[in-house]
Amino acid sequence: MTIRNARHPFYEFCDEALEDIRKQGRYRTFTPLARQADRYPVYEEELPSVPEGREVVVWSSNDYLGMGVETEVCEAAIRAVREHGAGAGGTRNIAGTSPLHKALEAELASLHGKEAGLLFVSGYVSNQASLQTILTSMPGWICFSDRQNHASMIAGIKGARGSATVIYEHNDLADLEAKLAAAPADAPKLIAFESVYSMDGDISDIAGTCALARKYGAMTYIDEVHAVGLYGQEGGGVTQRDGVADQVDIIEGTLAKGFGVHGGYITASAQVVDYLRSAASGFIFTTSLPPSVVAAALASVKLVRAQNWRRAKMFERVDTFREKLRAAGVPFTLTPSHIVPVPVGDADRCKTISRRLLNDYGLYATPINYPTVAHGTERLRLTPGPFHTDDMMDEMVNALRVLLAEVPIPASGQAVIDKAA
Amino acid sequence: MTIRNARHPFYEFCDEALEDIRKQGRYRTFTPLARQADRYPVYEEELPSVPEGREVVVWSSNDYLGMGVETEVCEAAIRAVREHGAGAGGTRNIAGTSPLHKALEAELASLHGKEAGLLFVSGYVSNQASLQTILTSMPGWICFSDRQNHASMIAGIKGARGSATVIYEHNDLADLEAKLAAAPADAPKLIAFESVYSMDGDISDIAGTCALARKYGAMTYIDEVHAVGLYGQEGGGVTQRDGVADQVDIIEGTLAKGFGVHGGYITASAQVVDYLRSAASGFIFTTSLPPSVVAAALASVKLVRAQNWRRAKMFERVDTFREKLRAAGVPFTLTPSHIVPVPVGDADRCKTISRRLLNDYGLYATPINYPTVAHGTERLRLTPGPFHTDDMMDEMVNALRVLLAEVPIPASGQAVIDKAA
Ligand SMILES: Cc1ncc(COP(=O)(O)O)c(C=O)c1O
Ligand SMILES: Cc1ncc(COP(=O)(O)O)c(C=O)c1O
Repeated sequence: MTIRNARHPFYEFCDEALEDIRKQGRYRTFTPLARQADRYPVYEEELPSVPEGREVVVWSSNDYLGMGVETEVCEAAIRAVREHGAGAGGTRNIAGTSPLHKALEAELASLHGKEAGLLFVSGYVSNQASLQTILTSMPGWICFSDRQNHASMIAGIKGARGSATVIYEHNDLADLEAKLAAAPADAPKLIAFESVYSMDGDISDIAGTCALARKYGAMTYIDEVHAVGLYGQEGGGVTQRDGVADQVDIIEGTLAKGFGVHGGYITASAQVVDYLRSAASGFIFTTSLPPSVVAAALASVKLVRAQNWRRAKMFERVDTFREKLRAAGVPFTLTPSHIVPVPVGDADRCKTISRRLLNDYGLYATPINYPTVAHGTERLRLTPGPFHTDDMMDEMVNALRVLLAEVPIPASGQAVIDKAA
Repeated sequence: MTIRNARHPFYEFCDEALEDIRKQGRYRTFTPLARQADRYPVYEEELPSVPEGREVVVWSSNDYLGMGVETEVCEAAIRAVREHGAGAGGTRNIAGTSPLHKALEAELASLHGKEAGLLFVSGYVSNQASLQTILTSMPGWICFSDRQNHASMIAGIKGARGSATVIYEHNDLADLEAKLAAAPADAPKLIAFESVYSMDGDISDIAGTCALARKYGAMTYIDEVHAVGLYGQEGGGVTQRDGVADQVDIIEGTLAKGFGVHGGYITASAQVVDYLRSAASGFIFTTSLPPSVVAAALASVKLVRAQNWRRAKMFERVDTFREKLRAAGVPFTLTPSHIVPVPVGDADRCKTISRRLLNDYGLYATPINYPTVAHGTERLRLTPGPFHTDDMMDEMVNALRVLLAEVPIPASGQAVIDKAA
């Protein structure tokens, strides 16, 4: 069917790049998993050999609270499909702004105590488009970016031609201060960082970062993607938990993780939001989110704000799981967040253990390898949630105990594993 | 609530930039319009003064075939929400690939006669991520980019640091050839262009472009965003209509316009798709599309492929509308596509006519002003679809006739309007 433009060197390049990726053990095969709304975290794995699929308990979902399977959230989506159809049919400016979009933006602004909110098609796009637009708005911007920032922030920062980037060591305020102090006093400055870093599960010092921002006249931009819904008395994130939301200029979040649906957003002062609305290409020139996605997200945010027990339940499950790991002697990294990394220390070992978890035990935990994390820090990243029962936990703990013992640790991985709690 | 970081110059910058935008008459206020699935293209306008909203007939939707309100499409979305929940819960690699995602990618590959397909969260992201990743893959890339290419293609091309960009005049193959001939013979080359240009409604010479690509050893990348679903015997776009899909290396499209749902994609050879899947940051590091969006899109693509009458019906409506405009002496640009631009020639006039269409007649047509189109070429851009009845058309034609006569033409706009058919 396809006639290849065989002369073009890009085809050979792709073949070679893919072979390289394979050789490095980082070729990814996506496991086809169908979430079962009424049995979350049970999914069905599509298997050629098993026509009806196979039940798998998923331990890697970022729908941390299970809001994506909550009846009220699903019913909001369904109602909106029936009322408004399956898509928005236009960009925000061209018939694609429904009252639902406006209501969700207002709800998010209120959640974070900001004047205004702005929706994007994803958290990735909200970071990329906002940072790139801000950092190209005036001449001379310097962006101070935490070394561990997410790819979407990096995309926006790197995409801002003409601006300068200074990378500071991860969560290292002394390094940040030294770098702020060394920069020209009159250059416009932005500090870009996250609250919960999703792969290590550590949490930044937001108050400390904002104090430095004030001292050196910098603006602050925080990615709360892995915190919104989960931290703070209404799920406003770590900025809310720490009582510092009003010190951060721009709070960014996603609707796809703690809120369980899809889409991204920023909240900030009215004029910053209005400027991004008017200037950010990635906001303007794209079809707006379907009304059903927006309706579901709105329902989810409202529930999550009102129901603290959802957060309490998740943290209780996380604690219980850690207890069980500890009791069984399975090493894990004790993080200050809800994330439970189990260090494995080698790409092949990580893949093997993940595959055997799936094949032998019907348990799914994605191997987290380079480039998502650094070489030598490969891990399983587990996200226990409100729907993981004690029995499911016992199965996982047992399977990990067996597999970590059975699958040999390569010499290079040892150091990392010894560091784990 | 928000404590502004008042010292930071960005706040003042935003205030000034917004004032500037206002002064230039290009400040945008989004009209809140709720699509009524059972009465498309009727929407409800949210009005503070009218609690129950007001009925408006929308003439600016890009859901060209009305697939987003098709019962089978909506039911597919609803079924998937019930089965799988409201969101995907993970990135493609981390529990976010459902069998639906795989099926849709296969369906799109088949639609375009390509080996493989790859989904993105939007058409914007598919362009930006694919072009940027390709153009940074090897050293020395030169991208030949049509001057009228969409913002999302420009974002990807500009984002590819280290690559060179050569802009050729819009749809001008002589200019393209001169520029190809002037470039180093051994540099890897990519020609990036669209099929249907959505604001002018003109269509590129794909066969001619591909012939030049072969002659000069360039790859070709086409954006069929405003053509998929609408052209070709199965809705495979202009590449299908012209029988040249196999000559184009990469065909990009959206699920949010002709298919009426949400999301974007590329189709290409297996190794190009596999490389982008493995390397494109904008594909990897983001939550995958909700299963319900994917299910609806899959249902839509299948219907649109099988049912040629949907395309025939749309073009019949477009022809009828043009007949009515002609009979009433309302100037419009006769395009070779389904798009009906009505030139207005001035930003304020365009806004006034659009506002009066809405307020006096209950008809919605977005004013298309700078920066979406060049100064002096402001227009209303009308998209008649299968659900616009003869009566709706008569109302629009009459309203345009009245308003174009009543709202004065500024001297500067005259030339543009005289050129219109
Ligand atoms: C820190 C961080 N920011 C942003 C994103 C992107 O959010 P989304 O999945 O909504 O695109 C992710 C993950 O996907 C993330 O981990
Ligand atoms: C030519 C073109 N390409 C790409 C896009 C982006 O597609 P999407 O709306 O799916 O993001 C658009 C419009 O939105 C467009 O007009």
